[in-house]
Amino acid sequence: MAKDKKPRRPKAETPKGFRDYFGAEVAERNHMLGQIAEVYHLYGYDPLETSAVETVEALGKFLPDVDRPNEGVFAWEEDGDWLALRYDLTAPLARVAAQFRNDLPNPYRRYAMGPVWRNEKPGPGRYRQFYQCDADTVGAPSVAADAEICSMLSDTLERVGIPRGDYLVRINNRKVLNGVLEAVGLNPAEDQATADAVLRTIDKFDKVGADGVRQLLTTGRKDQSGAFIDGVGLGDAVADTVLAFMQAKGADAAATIASLREVVAGSPTGATGVDELEQIGALLAAQGYGPDRTEIDPSVVRGLGYYTGPVFEAELTFEIMDAKGRPQQFGSVAGGGRYDDLVKRFTGQAVPATGVSIGVDRLLAALRAKGRMDGIAQGPVIVTVMDRNRMADYQAMVGELRNAGIRAEVYLGNPKNFGNQLKYADKRLSPVAVIEGEDEAARGVVQVKDLVLGAKIAESASLEEWKSQPAQREIPRGDLVAEIRKMLRQEG
Amino acid sequence: MAKDKKPRRPKAETPKGFRDYFGAEVAERNHMLGQIAEVYHLYGYDPLETSAVETVEALGKFLPDVDRPNEGVFAWEEDGDWLALRYDLTAPLARVAAQFRNDLPNPYRRYAMGPVWRNEKPGPGRYRQFYQCDADTVGAPSVAADAEICSMLSDTLERVGIPRGDYLVRINNRKVLNGVLEAVGLNPAEDQATADAVLRTIDKFDKVGADGVRQLLTTGRKDQSGAFIDGVGLGDAVADTVLAFMQAKGADAAATIASLREVVAGSPTGATGVDELEQIGALLAAQGYGPDRTEIDPSVVRGLGYYTGPVFEAELTFEIMDAKGRPQQFGSVAGGGRYDDLVKRFTGQAVPATGVSIGVDRLLAALRAKGRMDGIAQGPVIVTVMDRNRMADYQAMVGELRNAGIRAEVYLGNPKNFGNQLKYADKRLSPVAVIEGEDEAARGVVQVKDLVLGAKIAESASLEEWKSQPAQREIPRGDLVAEIRKMLRQEG
Repeated sequence: MAKDKKPRRPKAETPKGFRDYFGAEVAERNHMLGQIAEVYHLYGYDPLETSAVETVEALGKFLPDVDRPNEGVFAWEEDGDWLALRYDLTAPLARVAAQFRNDLPNPYRRYAMGPVWRNEKPGPGRYRQFYQCDADTVGAPSVAADAEICSMLSDTLERVGIPRGDYLVRINNRKVLNGVLEAVGLNPAEDQATADAVLRTIDKFDKVGADGVRQLLTTGRKDQSGAFIDGVGLGDAVADTVLAFMQAKGADAAATIASLREVVAGSPTGATGVDELEQIGALLAAQGYGPDRTEIDPSVVRGLGYYTGPVFEAELTFEIMDAKGRPQQFGSVAGGGRYDDLVKRFTGQAVPATGVSIGVDRLLAALRAKGRMDGIAQGPVIVTVMDRNRMADYQAMVGELRNAGIRAEVYLGNPKNFGNQLKYADKRLSPVAVIEGEDEAARGVVQVKDLVLGAKIAESASLEEWKSQPAQREIPRGDLVAEIRKMLRQEG
Repeated sequence: MAKDKKPRRPKAETPKGFRDYFGAEVAERNHMLGQIAEVYHLYGYDPLETSAVETVEALGKFLPDVDRPNEGVFAWEEDGDWLALRYDLTAPLARVAAQFRNDLPNPYRRYAMGPVWRNEKPGPGRYRQFYQCDADTVGAPSVAADAEICSMLSDTLERVGIPRGDYLVRINNRKVLNGVLEAVGLNPAEDQATADAVLRTIDKFDKVGADGVRQLLTTGRKDQSGAFIDGVGLGDAVADTVLAFMQAKGADAAATIASLREVVAGSPTGATGVDELEQIGALLAAQGYGPDRTEIDPSVVRGLGYYTGPVFEAELTFEIMDAKGRPQQFGSVAGGGRYDDLVKRFTGQAVPATGVSIGVDRLLAALRAKGRMDGIAQGPVIVTVMDRNRMADYQAMVGELRNAGIRAEVYLGNPKNFGNQLKYADKRLSPVAVIEGEDEAARGVVQVKDLVLGAKIAESASLEEWKSQPAQREIPRGDLVAEIRKMLRQEG
């Protein structure tokens, strides 16, 4: 006989590393993404929404040695094909640019906003699903396309509420770095491994400083824990040249360009790279995106191996307090560059492309730190229920308020305990509660309770102030909309 | 020796059943969802964004007999847990309502918009990823919550552009159907299988008519292909009562309610159901949502088994032409109802809930059919490149246009072939092209080419008209923004 097993209840939990976003969090992000989309739209970029699911083959993360794709993505087998959730918005763009190359306008300017998924170990503030927000131009070989991305990035930051002076778009060029390596006798095209190692090393400049980078480029370095990190094995003269490149920023763009020309002397790739930087700088300056908003900065590296030309990064230059109350620079909120080889994977033909990705969560955090998101998500006016039989009257009140564009709702829980209704209003961050009992209804009036003022008074007011500034007052029923509009205006 | 294998290129393809959405498609959907969110916000609903990935356990689709979850979802094993892409927005809401029951306001009004995934066989117009847009109230037992959903649905349809008279929110109640079954001696609580079979059968009313439903409820029916469909096995008198219920709609709400009372006579469940319908009707009427917008209609069934009380459906009542040019009713674009048992799966305690889901693709199709989406996604003004060295000037022009809020871009492809630039403008649906060569620059003028007018003239104009209405004209460089604004206004 089968055992009489009590069915186990499912656990109400998100999978490990995933989370839910509530109310204001969603509203604030949508608000910001909407503003970004406005700027991208003005610049002629078209939205593209690819599906969350791609073939593993198209994403290009398949490891041939195992029967399961790379652990970095969420993947599964479906009718013999391996499918996966996209891990960024660039790989799907490359697939689209190849798949629809005969139908899309050329150049193709597109923007994309949406979640991506990473099958990585979650940590504090690190989730396995998060938003990306990208803009790219595919098919434009000219550096005018790179300059456009930089000016658009600048406009975007100002549009969402980062004032000029609080950010800087810093620009470098991979070709200059390759030129530096060429100038010292390496060939980055043939020795990609060394070029990548140099890239990874100079990306640590902020952390280990010039001396640390010099040690890591040459014979190696003992880190703080005492562990020894192997060096890249370059000679001292070569390491000096690389460091000279990173520190080539001069007093102005012309001085920087001049220093860079010296560092890459003798390398055709390097010369091309410096020319491109000069052109980007000139285009931006001519449009008014001068040194208060953009700058050539040879210390910008951008980790990704796939960049082939100009790279850029938007840095917020104001300070915020860290968890321990110490001021620190906010840092990078967006980055990108030119990648001319991604579409080639599919078609065999190189297609020039350049683009930028905004760190949605970081930029949101910055806007919150600057108080730019205050009031995006105001709670509704709550019409309380004193008398269950008068529900139609209460519904009529919220109807009038909504018609006037005021967010409003009737309390729909059990109305017996009035205190619960006010607690609910509190949880909803309601600015105003409306109260109409039998007595008020008979006299044609309602009570309006200013919950924002009420909270302030409860916090700090003396008895005198309490009396002179009553948070609750009686108004004619006919004045409901006008009075509440006035109260909201005072608070907004 | 290893063979020298040429690496195979990946296929640039979406997985089977998935698709990409471009430009206007994305813009139109976002525009509509933004308007819907405005109405939901006004009603006090808060956005909720859950992750795309849930545990299979929380979704509740796991079949215990197989080592792989239900084929209806995309699922995979991760560190011993089965994860899956959500197949709707209601299951994640039930999980959230259980997981955060101590923190959320009660009642909890939330809306959610986003993609869901179904591992089903794709077909024409049927994709494995599509949008849903839901609003639900969790924790409100009163039918005032159901009435609110109906009035909000009505407001939403008008907000997105379906005029009053072109839609109807039809309301029924599962309790009335259960009452009908009770009235004829069945017990739906004990014989769920029969109740479900009746539900599925009467859902076919539109297809097979009253006689067909009668046959299917009793002894069975031969369909058009000659195949015999087994009947539910009810007696004739029972079938008559069910049909009387479905056809109980009277000349007005009062008449419908009176008919329903007769049909469910003797059933307490049925009586409660009719009372609820009467209350919903009264609340809606008091708020002005009368018979021109809402109606009690006993023929509304809504397939899903989990509804426990009021059910509703928004139908568009205007005709559109089908693929063969025949007029047909547009039909249902949204539906929902009360489901009091979904959260119970997790907590063991019944939690009242009611909500609505809008068919995003169907509503979009309706708005496109009504011409409501025209002009949402206008192409950019294209500044052509006649002289590569004047790129900064061209960039200055688009900068001025954008500052005036006009979507504009410089052509960034290879500028050698001017015809290609105009073809590009055509593909972008550009309203205006700007042309400035060396000669124009020297004289301080630019050429503006009205591409919309140009297309019209090319289609239909006589030589006389061509001459009197030139699509291309010369204007002072300083008038660029003002002139283009004028041209766009004429076309908008």
